[in-house]
Amino acid sequence: MANSENIIELIRQKKLFDLKNLISGLLPFDITEIIEPLETGEKVIVLRLLNKETAAEVFSHLEHEDQEEMLVHFSMDRVKEIMEEMDPDDVAELFDELPEKMVKRLMHLLSTEERNIVNRLLGYPEDSAGRLMTPEFIELHKDSSAENAIQTIREIGLDKETIYYSYVVDEKGFLIGIVSLKDLLLAQPATKISEIMTTNFVSVNTTDDQEEVAGVLTKYDLTALPVVDKDKKLVGIITVDDIVDVIHEEATEDFHKMVGIEAPDEPYFSTKFLVLGRKRALWLVILLVMSYFSSIVLKHYSRILEIVIPLAFFIPMLTGTCGNTGMQSATLIIRGLATGEIKGKDIMKILFREIFMGGFLGIILGIFSFVRARFVDIDPFIGIAVGTAVFISVMTANIIGTILPLLLEKLKIDPAISAGPFISTIIDVTSLILYFEIAQVVFHIRIQT
Amino acid sequence: MANSENIIELIRQKKLFDLKNLISGLLPFDITEIIEPLETGEKVIVLRLLNKETAAEVFSHLEHEDQEEMLVHFSMDRVKEIMEEMDPDDVAELFDELPEKMVKRLMHLLSTEERNIVNRLLGYPEDSAGRLMTPEFIELHKDSSAENAIQTIREIGLDKETIYYSYVVDEKGFLIGIVSLKDLLLAQPATKISEIMTTNFVSVNTTDDQEEVAGVLTKYDLTALPVVDKDKKLVGIITVDDIVDVIHEEATEDFHKMVGIEAPDEPYFSTKFLVLGRKRALWLVILLVMSYFSSIVLKHYSRILEIVIPLAFFIPMLTGTCGNTGMQSATLIIRGLATGEIKGKDIMKILFREIFMGGFLGIILGIFSFVRARFVDIDPFIGIAVGTAVFISVMTANIIGTILPLLLEKLKIDPAISAGPFISTIIDVTSLILYFEIAQVVFHIRIQT
Repeated sequence: MANSENIIELIRQKKLFDLKNLISGLLPFDITEIIEPLETGEKVIVLRLLNKETAAEVFSHLEHEDQEEMLVHFSMDRVKEIMEEMDPDDVAELFDELPEKMVKRLMHLLSTEERNIVNRLLGYPEDSAGRLMTPEFIELHKDSSAENAIQTIREIGLDKETIYYSYVVDEKGFLIGIVSLKDLLLAQPATKISEIMTTNFVSVNTTDDQEEVAGVLTKYDLTALPVVDKDKKLVGIITVDDIVDVIHEEATEDFHKMVGIEAPDEPYFSTKFLVLGRKRALWLVILLVMSYFSSIVLKHYSRILEIVIPLAFFIPMLTGTCGNTGMQSATLIIRGLATGEIKGKDIMKILFREIFMGGFLGIILGIFSFVRARFVDIDPFIGIAVGTAVFISVMTANIIGTILPLLLEKLKIDPAISAGPFISTIIDVTSLILYFEIAQVVFHIRIQT
Repeated sequence: MANSENIIELIRQKKLFDLKNLISGLLPFDITEIIEPLETGEKVIVLRLLNKETAAEVFSHLEHEDQEEMLVHFSMDRVKEIMEEMDPDDVAELFDELPEKMVKRLMHLLSTEERNIVNRLLGYPEDSAGRLMTPEFIELHKDSSAENAIQTIREIGLDKETIYYSYVVDEKGFLIGIVSLKDLLLAQPATKISEIMTTNFVSVNTTDDQEEVAGVLTKYDLTALPVVDKDKKLVGIITVDDIVDVIHEEATEDFHKMVGIEAPDEPYFSTKFLVLGRKRALWLVILLVMSYFSSIVLKHYSRILEIVIPLAFFIPMLTGTCGNTGMQSATLIIRGLATGEIKGKDIMKILFREIFMGGFLGIILGIFSFVRARFVDIDPFIGIAVGTAVFISVMTANIIGTILPLLLEKLKIDPAISAGPFISTIIDVTSLILYFEIAQVVFHIRIQT
């Protein structure tokens, strides 16, 4: 069994032949995983033992920091070899993370053609379709025959990202059709491409956000998607396997936004302590400052609090329950918007539904909190105040949780940032006001009777 | 432009020929989207105008409820036609949702072979690899030549899920290799399959959960994955486009779990009001009952609260800030575990990091809340009590948010359920106890001086 320990052992004992045998049967990703805990020098030794295709793939999977350190250790020839084997989009991603000086040096190692490709990719905004696409696709002519097309694919297919879809472009570079290898193989050899190609296709623009691209690919169940530039000319394709990572990334981003961590681009361990700390602290401080309003509300009602101290016992329960309710509806809406299941035109339908849902939840939770309040304090008026406040505040919280993400979506702000802390702060204030207003009425009645 | 309104209009005016022209140029998914708001009868009319392949695809994309209603309206011949065109995994999924009586009747419409396939698929647990896979893959023999293999693919490829990967099986049905169409096309025609096939592949078991399958596909960047049964024989394949939906589904499930909605399987609008209401209410009630502890804590400290009423003003700020901090660390851990980036062995490293992070955040937030408290109440002792409590409670909350998901993962419970409400409840109680203990010390000092 190959694992990090016995690889380090073999390197120490200089048994490189045994090491080569040990790792040669492994999949590239597994090699990456095994060598991750190794020192940079040891990683370099392992990569030297691999053939250049595998080495390039293992290298692509490593963290950017590791890549940077390793590049210094490699001979220039080796770096050149690896970069030639890497997909241009992976090279562009790597260059984006490296110090500028290093990029300049590495650029010289690329062929002119490759340098142009990488430079063009780097010109597109981060997380855009242009960055994600590969310019290595197969172009066919509409008048060529299925047989000739297959022959062309055989000749040039080795360097292409996929040979399973070919793109038919007119003289001006406009995409006019897509033909799958399946259709080519299953057609009569003499059939013209124009007869079997699909002219009914979707495409994305180079500047479209990767989240949008993922949406289109998912919606239409596609395995590859053409990318056109602002002049509508075909410049690249995006394949579904690139999108799998995007979907994971976007979900993670939304999770992080929901707890107010301004989207760290890097995975947990590669994010520097202070970068993450600053991001986390920023939001926590903003929310802390915003919670000033809840203190002001409480101060405003301090007279009734002084008279009826037990009212304070239920503050965490009230704000907690209302916060949870609001978070539930907000999450349902945010997730529905993210997966494209909820659209702008559904607003009235959603509002209607959530008003009823709020009432339903409010009644149940109101009854439970009335009963629960009696266990803490035997005064039934406390129970009445708490129960009524929970009933009305839960309804309100449910509507706030529903409206806020929909409103942000309308304002073209990512609704994910609204959830979590932001919503809770608003709900805290409204539910406290409702609570004390209701309490004032209830205890006024008690004093009068 | 085709939209729901003008389609309904054309149906009313019985202009079916115009209608056919209007929709014939559309992609199946777009047709599904346009006809969704239509009456069942109208949907049936539209589907009748489509060729059977498109009809089957449009039908597959519809919600299960719609499918069920439409099946009653179709002629038996049409139902048969559509089901024959549908992928067996889609048929199995549909049958799973239909009433048993209807399934029995529909089963008779399938050919014996198809019936066996669907029955076998239905035998696998829900959300398992067996359910997700398709048995329609291409099998090749290791001794056949590349040229013959391509010929075979040409002959039988039309009905297969993918022709881009073929599977090499020995006499006993064990998978011994995988060969891509790319390799076949690029190889010399006389090359034997055994020479070009990959023997170094990963596979999953029929009973593996779909989340695991998605993990393997993502990790190894694959486009298709073989599925073997308990005897290790090849029974099907899963392609990456099926997995895209799974990744979306699993992320949504985690989002919902985080706010205590016990994973509704269906999208927002198809979930029945009462089903969703019950799920939401269940968790909210549990958490409301759990918040009993925070009331008990407050009641326990009611004497100091009576003496120093302003202490109550900062309760929502304290529980809110600590809750937010705990949620942040919990989300980072849960997401890291879900994407496989954090593993069990990293626990010590994470704990170490998060202890420092808690200290860092605690100092910043402590200082801010000291300053902020002075704005609400001029008594500096209040500020000292609040600032110190926030500092210590934030550190504690950060560790609770870190440990809880890791602990649940160890206990084989999905860590996503721990986040959100569950963690906040625990953090509420601990931070309130810390707050009042610190306040007691601070005001004891004030009384003495």
